Amino acid sequence: MNEYKAPLEEITFVLETMADMKNWDHTPGFEDAGEDLVTAVLEEAGKLARDIIAPTNRIGDLEPPVLKDGVVTTPDAFKPMNAAFVEGGWPTLAADPEFGGQGLPSVLATAVTEMVTSSNMAYSLQPLLTSGAIEAINAHGTDEQRRTYLPNMISGIWSGAMNLTEPGAGSDVGALRAKAEKQADGSYKITGQKIFITWGEHDLCDNIIHLVLARLPDAPEGTKGISMFVVPKFHVNEDGSLGARNDLRCVSLEHKLGIHASPTCVMSFGDEGNCVGYIVGEENKGMRNMFTMMNHARIGVGLEGVAIAERAYQQAVYYAKDRVQSAAIGAKSRASVAIIEHPDVRRMLLSMRATCEAARAIIYRNVWALDRAHKTSDMEVKKAALGEADLLTPISKAYSTDIGVEAASLGVQIHGGMGFIEETGAAQHYRDSRIAPIYEGTNGIQALDLVGRKLNSEGGVHWKALIAEMREFTAGMDRSMAGSKPVLEEGINALSDAAETLFANGFDRIVDTAGAATPYLRLFGTVLGGYLLARQAVEAERRLAADDGNPAFLKSKVTVAKFFIEQLLPQATSLLGPIKAGAAELMSMDADDFIRT
Amino acid sequence: MNEYKAPLEEITFVLETMADMKNWDHTPGFEDAGEDLVTAVLEEAGKLARDIIAPTNRIGDLEPPVLKDGVVTTPDAFKPMNAAFVEGGWPTLAADPEFGGQGLPSVLATAVTEMVTSSNMAYSLQPLLTSGAIEAINAHGTDEQRRTYLPNMISGIWSGAMNLTEPGAGSDVGALRAKAEKQADGSYKITGQKIFITWGEHDLCDNIIHLVLARLPDAPEGTKGISMFVVPKFHVNEDGSLGARNDLRCVSLEHKLGIHASPTCVMSFGDEGNCVGYIVGEENKGMRNMFTMMNHARIGVGLEGVAIAERAYQQAVYYAKDRVQSAAIGAKSRASVAIIEHPDVRRMLLSMRATCEAARAIIYRNVWALDRAHKTSDMEVKKAALGEADLLTPISKAYSTDIGVEAASLGVQIHGGMGFIEETGAAQHYRDSRIAPIYEGTNGIQALDLVGRKLNSEGGVHWKALIAEMREFTAGMDRSMAGSKPVLEEGINALSDAAETLFANGFDRIVDTAGAATPYLRLFGTVLGGYLLARQAVEAERRLAADDGNPAFLKSKVTVAKFFIEQLLPQATSLLGPIKAGAAELMSMDADDFIRT
Repeated sequence: MNEYKAPLEEITFVLETMADMKNWDHTPGFEDAGEDLVTAVLEEAGKLARDIIAPTNRIGDLEPPVLKDGVVTTPDAFKPMNAAFVEGGWPTLAADPEFGGQGLPSVLATAVTEMVTSSNMAYSLQPLLTSGAIEAINAHGTDEQRRTYLPNMISGIWSGAMNLTEPGAGSDVGALRAKAEKQADGSYKITGQKIFITWGEHDLCDNIIHLVLARLPDAPEGTKGISMFVVPKFHVNEDGSLGARNDLRCVSLEHKLGIHASPTCVMSFGDEGNCVGYIVGEENKGMRNMFTMMNHARIGVGLEGVAIAERAYQQAVYYAKDRVQSAAIGAKSRASVAIIEHPDVRRMLLSMRATCEAARAIIYRNVWALDRAHKTSDMEVKKAALGEADLLTPISKAYSTDIGVEAASLGVQIHGGMGFIEETGAAQHYRDSRIAPIYEGTNGIQALDLVGRKLNSEGGVHWKALIAEMREFTAGMDRSMAGSKPVLEEGINALSDAAETLFANGFDRIVDTAGAATPYLRLFGTVLGGYLLARQAVEAERRLAADDGNPAFLKSKVTVAKFFIEQLLPQATSLLGPIKAGAAELMSMDADDFIRT
Repeated sequence: MNEYKAPLEEITFVLETMADMKNWDHTPGFEDAGEDLVTAVLEEAGKLARDIIAPTNRIGDLEPPVLKDGVVTTPDAFKPMNAAFVEGGWPTLAADPEFGGQGLPSVLATAVTEMVTSSNMAYSLQPLLTSGAIEAINAHGTDEQRRTYLPNMISGIWSGAMNLTEPGAGSDVGALRAKAEKQADGSYKITGQKIFITWGEHDLCDNIIHLVLARLPDAPEGTKGISMFVVPKFHVNEDGSLGARNDLRCVSLEHKLGIHASPTCVMSFGDEGNCVGYIVGEENKGMRNMFTMMNHARIGVGLEGVAIAERAYQQAVYYAKDRVQSAAIGAKSRASVAIIEHPDVRRMLLSMRATCEAARAIIYRNVWALDRAHKTSDMEVKKAALGEADLLTPISKAYSTDIGVEAASLGVQIHGGMGFIEETGAAQHYRDSRIAPIYEGTNGIQALDLVGRKLNSEGGVHWKALIAEMREFTAGMDRSMAGSKPVLEEGINALSDAAETLFANGFDRIVDTAGAATPYLRLFGTVLGGYLLARQAVEAERRLAADDGNPAFLKSKVTVAKFFIEQLLPQATSLLGPIKAGAAELMSMDADDFIRT
């Protein structure tokens, strides 16, 4: 059993509780997003994911794309799948109506993307990177660039790719060496090699619009000398038809641990001296554009953590309900039972489910904050919403991808020996999930972003507001959640203490802050996740009392929230000591003494 | 850089502090094990591991054994490697001198096995399973069986295999269905199919001695009806030469996530009705024999966790020292530095190293307890040592294999994007490590063993003695370790509280106990590991003060112990609440409600 069923009840509940879904049709800009439409979108997306995309997941794992003579050929099964995705209009959901988008809330598109990603994470990267490129061109490109590229990218006929990394420039983007030289006609000649370019070359789309970071001959060193260029695989004629092939090519594909179906390309630009690109935004301002792409992609990668946790969870549940082994502990009968009846297996399943639901809540809230920021005309509301979205982005990315790996690992464990056999499918999730904490800024980089930019942004007003919100809500927790209340309060106190400590560190203790970044992010993500699940549980109790909804599902929301807070959260709370300990011990060993003798 | 260097300084220090190595030559039975000999053994083993075995690791990953016409062919590079291992006499180190062994301490053989396993985990399973089979035959076989099989198994000319699992009988061994029917000559006809048989068929050895669990026609149901049989691949003539091929064969190999070089066989016995086996021990008493094999194998699998963590750590250190990226945080210079200078990378490296060293300390102590039990003539000492060894076995297995996976995952993370590329090698450790929490009794089964048999054994005298020992030592911690003292004490108090709670649960609350088993094992392993590292640190400080040894290494022991206790142990301590919470919440959801709708 390795199918996937979109968790529609859960996703709808999260959209309602974390993203105000029931009021979308009263929200300026989202008037069309009435409940009927939203429900229909989710249901149809669920069918697409289950019936069309999910069956390609293992095929792509077994038959990775092949490079021959510069052409990257994807598995046969991918072409009709991608066509169904494009023809159904799925890439257009939240895109700008001016260029053919439907203008629906991004958080609704996020729900759909989650389903696509659960179905086939390797494939999902193609639309993910395309929408990041769309956003960068839309935000920073000229009107002509928007008209030239966006309609076909939004429809999914063309894809986008982000060309940042070079062998000597990974986390340190500022070290990149690709060159751009201005030509008399205002275009630029691009030369250089880029690595780890996801879906940099493939045969699913008619054209590939590369966004390339490069450096002008006289550019300052570091990030202040980086410019962004749009470099199409095929030039686009004035009438919109495809013109000549540009001088760029895929020179090799990586052999990877997972996401086999996603071609990870080494891209070479300007081997013939004839690679033409067009600047996006101003010269030397490419980093700002890149952050537009990256923030979008970071949340998208965080969503991969949720999506893979969900898929691994579903597979583990089916196995645990199906696999009969050993009598129930403490039961009179010695008859063997399904292993889902064993407490330890339940602990693993609930850990997977609870962390998945916590991460989903964080991400949907994060995207909804972006939606709110984009739609409001109240500048105070916009500022607060953007501040919250920025604060949550590194947590969405790092917390979710960490729990994605943990959940996939538990999924293997629940399968026992069968989990280690590739044909079962659990092992693929374990392999696929492992890239997400690495790309789009390693989780270490995310943690530094959280304790650097985000902690100090506007005097800390955004995290202080969030902690105040948590405290206020938690104070009112009662009924079934009363037992969780002191545990969650302790977590919030630890988070607050940790944040105040790192905030006070300032530049004098910047190494201590950097050393504490990763446990601080884990603490933040877990406390925030616990709080959001508690909110969901309280709403579920309200609906139970009002006889409004499926009781089994609503009760599960309470159980999962209690499990998360009482069983998982204390470990995060205990990170306060390590966070406050400073980095002296961490930095005390000489680098050479790490080597074994 | 994907080499392996045996951590001789660390291993020697652990043998000295955890296994009384300096006094071996005064220990009855180990008089030959003087310091010079031991040092020479470790150094030579280190060379074998580094020069001969380690280079085969990636080869085996890329070229798994192939099954054709019942013959399993290993990679060419494996034959000279195995020959060097056998011809060097390495399998004989701790074996019984009566059958060609050298009678050295098992803990010394454990150190050598660790090196072999770090070098090539997939290969190491062959000698591991062979020595498990040797132990079972030696403990439960007849004199004739011992004479027939042991000399060639001990020398490594023949290998052994354990045939337990069947499709319906994994964790629940008692459910197995393989049949054994007694023949007039006292032998048995064996029929049935076994799955997941590690090194069940291969071309490295002249003969393979299978130990097979099967059921007599009139045997009682469950574990009380299981008998053990020795079933050689080739019959052995009275003069010791090989006779006819027995009726057993490998019918397929599994395609696995990792340990590719280890052939995981589906074995079929008696397809032609002519598979002859010989009973080992008494009819229906096979479970007892199996535990002899399994306890040995469980510690050996635990050692795989240490070994893979060590290898992943070494590779990550080399990468982190080599890879230059970004300026040092807080430094005036904007020049890029090796990533080992970044606090977050150090946190990952120290986490890998500290958990690896904690697990190594636990396992070496566990094996040394077995050595002491076997050599002493004092029945009280023997009882206490055996009790300790039994108590520690599930912790050695589960804690070590869990941290093995965690360390391998951190190793991938430290490599960034390169970690996800297979040719780097970090990904192989991540894949290989994942089997160890599963086989030889899943870690969930280990946790149940710990809270079941081990917690209640002899009124809990063994865990009580261990906790008392920890308390007494910790009370005296001062100097550099003074800061760690309260943190370790809190951990010991939590462990004691948890143990008393579960001990008091009894049968009435057996489900609560089972639900708490996994966090309890993690708490036990972490506190014990912290205590053993603290002991090592105190000894290191003593040597530093006495100017006795390499100061850099001795200081690293203090740093690692402090890091483990102050940074990692609090998370385990925080498991006390979850352990005491009971399983009601865990068991409250209906199994069907785990399914997504």
